[in-house]
Amino acid sequence: MSSILQAAVIGCGSIASGSHIPHYASNPNVQLKYFCDIIPERADKAAQQYGGTAVYDYKEILNDPELDLVSVCTHNDMHAPISIDFLRAGKDVLCEKPAARTLPEALEMQKAAHESGRLLSIGVVNRFGAYNNLVKQMIEQGDLGEVYHVYASFRAHRSIPGIGGDFTRKAIAGGGALIDWGVHYLDLVLYCCGEPKILTASGETFCKLGRDIENYTYLSMWADRTKETGGVYDVDDSCVGLVRTAGPVISFHGAWAQNIGESETYIDFIGDKGGIRLNYCKDFVYYTAQDGGLTKRSIELPESDFYKIEIDSFVESVRTRVPNQAHIDRTIEASKILDAIYRSSESHREIVIGD
Amino acid sequence: MSSILQAAVIGCGSIASGSHIPHYASNPNVQLKYFCDIIPERADKAAQQYGGTAVYDYKEILNDPELDLVSVCTHNDMHAPISIDFLRAGKDVLCEKPAARTLPEALEMQKAAHESGRLLSIGVVNRFGAYNNLVKQMIEQGDLGEVYHVYASFRAHRSIPGIGGDFTRKAIAGGGALIDWGVHYLDLVLYCCGEPKILTASGETFCKLGRDIENYTYLSMWADRTKETGGVYDVDDSCVGLVRTAGPVISFHGAWAQNIGESETYIDFIGDKGGIRLNYCKDFVYYTAQDGGLTKRSIELPESDFYKIEIDSFVESVRTRVPNQAHIDRTIEASKILDAIYRSSESHREIVIGD
Amino acid sequence: MSSILQAAVIGCGSIASGSHIPHYASNPNVQLKYFCDIIPERADKAAQQYGGTAVYDYKEILNDPELDLVSVCTHNDMHAPISIDFLRAGKDVLCEKPAARTLPEALEMQKAAHESGRLLSIGVVNRFGAYNNLVKQMIEQGDLGEVYHVYASFRAHRSIPGIGGDFTRKAIAGGGALIDWGVHYLDLVLYCCGEPKILTASGETFCKLGRDIENYTYLSMWADRTKETGGVYDVDDSCVGLVRTAGPVISFHGAWAQNIGESETYIDFIGDKGGIRLNYCKDFVYYTAQDGGLTKRSIELPESDFYKIEIDSFVESVRTRVPNQAHIDRTIEASKILDAIYRSSESHREIVIGD
Amino acid sequence: MSSILQAAVIGCGSIASGSHIPHYASNPNVQLKYFCDIIPERADKAAQQYGGTAVYDYKEILNDPELDLVSVCTHNDMHAPISIDFLRAGKDVLCEKPAARTLPEALEMQKAAHESGRLLSIGVVNRFGAYNNLVKQMIEQGDLGEVYHVYASFRAHRSIPGIGGDFTRKAIAGGGALIDWGVHYLDLVLYCCGEPKILTASGETFCKLGRDIENYTYLSMWADRTKETGGVYDVDDSCVGLVRTAGPVISFHGAWAQNIGESETYIDFIGDKGGIRLNYCKDFVYYTAQDGGLTKRSIELPESDFYKIEIDSFVESVRTRVPNQAHIDRTIEASKILDAIYRSSESHREIVIGD
Repeated sequence: MSSILQAAVIGCGSIASGSHIPHYASNPNVQLKYFCDIIPERADKAAQQYGGTAVYDYKEILNDPELDLVSVCTHNDMHAPISIDFLRAGKDVLCEKPAARTLPEALEMQKAAHESGRLLSIGVVNRFGAYNNLVKQMIEQGDLGEVYHVYASFRAHRSIPGIGGDFTRKAIAGGGALIDWGVHYLDLVLYCCGEPKILTASGETFCKLGRDIENYTYLSMWADRTKETGGVYDVDDSCVGLVRTAGPVISFHGAWAQNIGESETYIDFIGDKGGIRLNYCKDFVYYTAQDGGLTKRSIELPESDFYKIEIDSFVESVRTRVPNQAHIDRTIEASKILDAIYRSSESHREIVIGD
Repeated sequence: MSSILQAAVIGCGSIASGSHIPHYASNPNVQLKYFCDIIPERADKAAQQYGGTAVYDYKEILNDPELDLVSVCTHNDMHAPISIDFLRAGKDVLCEKPAARTLPEALEMQKAAHESGRLLSIGVVNRFGAYNNLVKQMIEQGDLGEVYHVYASFRAHRSIPGIGGDFTRKAIAGGGALIDWGVHYLDLVLYCCGEPKILTASGETFCKLGRDIENYTYLSMWADRTKETGGVYDVDDSCVGLVRTAGPVISFHGAWAQNIGESETYIDFIGDKGGIRLNYCKDFVYYTAQDGGLTKRSIELPESDFYKIEIDSFVESVRTRVPNQAHIDRTIEASKILDAIYRSSESHREIVIGD
Repeated sequence: MSSILQAAVIGCGSIASGSHIPHYASNPNVQLKYFCDIIPERADKAAQQYGGTAVYDYKEILNDPELDLVSVCTHNDMHAPISIDFLRAGKDVLCEKPAARTLPEALEMQKAAHESGRLLSIGVVNRFGAYNNLVKQMIEQGDLGEVYHVYASFRAHRSIPGIGGDFTRKAIAGGGALIDWGVHYLDLVLYCCGEPKILTASGETFCKLGRDIENYTYLSMWADRTKETGGVYDVDDSCVGLVRTAGPVISFHGAWAQNIGESETYIDFIGDKGGIRLNYCKDFVYYTAQDGGLTKRSIELPESDFYKIEIDSFVESVRTRVPNQAHIDRTIEASKILDAIYRSSESHREIVIGD
Repeated sequence: MSSILQAAVIGCGSIASGSHIPHYASNPNVQLKYFCDIIPERADKAAQQYGGTAVYDYKEILNDPELDLVSVCTHNDMHAPISIDFLRAGKDVLCEKPAARTLPEALEMQKAAHESGRLLSIGVVNRFGAYNNLVKQMIEQGDLGEVYHVYASFRAHRSIPGIGGDFTRKAIAGGGALIDWGVHYLDLVLYCCGEPKILTASGETFCKLGRDIENYTYLSMWADRTKETGGVYDVDDSCVGLVRTAGPVISFHGAWAQNIGESETYIDFIGDKGGIRLNYCKDFVYYTAQDGGLTKRSIELPESDFYKIEIDSFVESVRTRVPNQAHIDRTIEASKILDAIYRSSESHREIVIGD
């Protein structure tokens, strides 16, 4: 391996241009060689700004022997085929979250990584957040005692992304609020709690507020709204679930959109010695009993960029060949939860996964 | 029936002396004839204050032909036997909540009511609250559209009642946070949502913070703490569950005590046209979309005493022979949920009740 | 002095029966000898319940040589004359807050205490609260650095007491929200900050929501509403002020009633090293910078009864002849602020008190 | 006047590039002719992006007869001289807020506008916000009754901009939190309340947390921090004041930085029939009494860009020669408050302005 790693970014949309590309560019051990997008203008623009070659079909660069690593930043439906192709071509892959639209796809990806002996990390960026790692450390060192229940709330009033576009079409995205936001929360819960195995999952997903696209009232929208007639909305805008694991029971309630006008985005880690409310992408509060009183403590840390830390960690993983905390083997369990909840919602019955 | 109803109160503890006794006393259609308690001082004190006869064994008055109605305000373990005895003796009964320690007991009570042709109401006092009835009315008139999910949160930081006493002994109380608080919330949810049938229930109950009685840190305690050595704590201090019904999915998270230092006591009724956050025993906020904006409205009403309304309603029910909204036939469904959740927690699997 | 102190309570209304009387009764060094009220039933009832003699005119007991100490719990207009009479008769006095209706009255009381050599404490009960004393200690030990600004917020939505009665008549109460609530907050601020001298005061008081007594909308009311025709409301229902002292600048905003539907009752102590938000009659949060981060800490303590501590402290003060922290010499400064704010509100100009 | 107005932007920093330039560019009645900055790269970059001529000294374009209007987006110290020069040269001017560093400078600007007969608007952008105008309308139509008190809170935990740079140097900025944030809040209060005359002002400003630049702990910073040694911090990081007007009493409490870890940014408009809490740059809640209850209502509107509305309004004003709501004659009163508060803080006495 050359001392400078050659990298390609597949899909040059917002997550690539906002995070992967600039952070590879600022990493001294990486050279950005290819920018690939099926929309030529996007690839061209990135190539122009950062130097490198624009490509419009990823298959053209699959077999470039100089290429070391690839970031897959496409829509969810292409995560599996592109990642698998590059793994089999001998490249290390960082694939954006969720791993794939479905669990079978994610398992295929994992299999390809194992068979090829290449690294596959998933873009579960919260595993690189400073507060999140502090929570994980506090749990590990026993500050909470036994964590027996975790409640994750990811509820928004109006936050459906790009209604009618790729985000809200099941065939492309695989699902809605649960797969898009839930994967972040559930993976983070598992990460902090030592990645316990899943035992049962019961849940329901709801497609209610977005299905009447024209009459959906909102104040602002992230991701572009589709302009074409015939936009599709067939994914969940909210979800609820109860998951038993070999560790804590996990319950969750999430919504891209819901007629409750509060934004409640936090995870409660509940232990018999202490508890933590982790404000998602923010700080946390630690509660415990001490000296006969009940204490509450929080700290705000200077901002750190967990996207940058994620990219640097992946590069370091490629250099050292040591899988990092986002490796597919450590993150597949969240996909199992998503899969089980979607199946439970269809059958209206609990899914038993293991003991 | 004489124009003035003759009443007995069985169990003269806090709920009797704080609500049943004074409200019967102020109802012009009722004469308080008996005050019964196995602790003679309690019965004597009430008899002295309100006029009437003190009794120490309820069986002595079972067959008084003048007696019309009875309030059962004992510990949970005596709800079923006493209520059943009075019903079979031809008296109308108002039994404090929860109906009983277990579902089979509650079903026996219901059966006794049906066979005797007498009235049996349960002390689910929230069915008489002004805000709660306003919520029910708004749901019925369609202000929320289809209510597809209800989330009930009854979480306290430290509120175990009388640790080591009758409240925390399963043999007497039947359970902890779930049966004591959960019954109020779940019955209220069912009431507002038109009393839908239960289909499945999955949940877990946790006995964590109270079990080490000596080291339980708290700031204040309602209900007396037991003074005797050998106090028992073998009930749930927190619980979580997911319930499918013929109407909305109901999820809940409750705790008498939990290491999260927030008190979150509300019910979210989530519909496709609007939503309501009902602050338990307080007011509510109604959210909807209107004129392209998202609105939020609340109203605070002058205080009304739902305990008084409950007693007056039962008296009226006895006079008119029309079951009121707290009748066992309308409130038994909450007992089915409690029962299913406790069974689910034991088996760590979802319980299927019906379709 | 006899080993057991003989006490009288003048005025047997709610503050007497809820605090002074029971706490004297439970103090082993005190014998309650007299219960005095111009409403004979009140005096009789207390005398009956606690043992002792009912009196209807305080002058009858002024010269009882056995009497050691007196609590003055009447309406504000009688604070000064009764306290002064007892001090001159050689008794130690605990007078409920505010010291008097006006500053000149309060200064007369202080003068009577000095001339008679007797003790005069004011019922500024917050000086005996556990959290408050912890705040004072933290300020003294430098945890906040220089406290340069204190903001006191005592704002309620609807809390006018006994509208149309003695509380809302200037001739009796001396004022409204400012004198009734403000005295608590301002005295507490001064106490925690080392009792600095007042330099300037500018403020306004508003009589707006209560003046139309019949149309005042409220949800509940503390203190009885007057039943008589011709109730009077001529006091301030809200107030605002800015006070410069030899220590921190103090600003405040208070309301018994205000058309902002939030209850904001806290004091912010703002220093250059740390700050404290003290939730009135509750706990506090301490903010500081540490290790490059910003921290937030709070503790909840088991409940303690500051009313009981206040009475016990006064009794101890009488026994030891050492003035306690509620002595008139330490609490007169708050009366100076009240006086200056009322004068500023009349002239619409700042009042300069000293340098 | 030609049908298309020719415009120049003086100062091409963040407010120019983020608002003035793009909004002129999208206005069909305006042609951006000049981009001026003393940092040539900034002027060049804007000229390149939008088309037009880069200028490095504004005096070069003063007398271009084609030039119709000018936006002044420089540091505060240059607001007055540049605006005055352009007004005297016959151009209409939109000058960013605050009008100037000091009241005398602002009065000079107003005088130049009057003498030249040209338009001078100030960048008090909140006068163009949708929620703010709704509040103004509700006050005007009597929904609040008499507004007798307004409390403005603009308190941040850590938000000093560019510590050690131009924002925190009095000689350049004129002041700190009060002039930078206070001007927005105070002008908005005056706007909503019908622009009443100022009568008295008492206040204090504090320079506490920023003065030790090296040890100032913060989490993030807007505006660049100066890199040079010898950065200066000599402005107020917090302030408090009480202002009497011909209309409501205005009190305020503001901080760029303060050791209270809450962000409280709102304005309470308090009237005798209703009240409004306006969340700054967000929505508001309207409180009133109705049908014997107390109601609370809010609405969230779709996002609108008040910066764009401001620019379009100024352009329209130039076209129609009708001063808009940001005209210097309507906004000078806020400068009078700032001036009086700074003077009051120096003398530690209230300033009397008028009757």
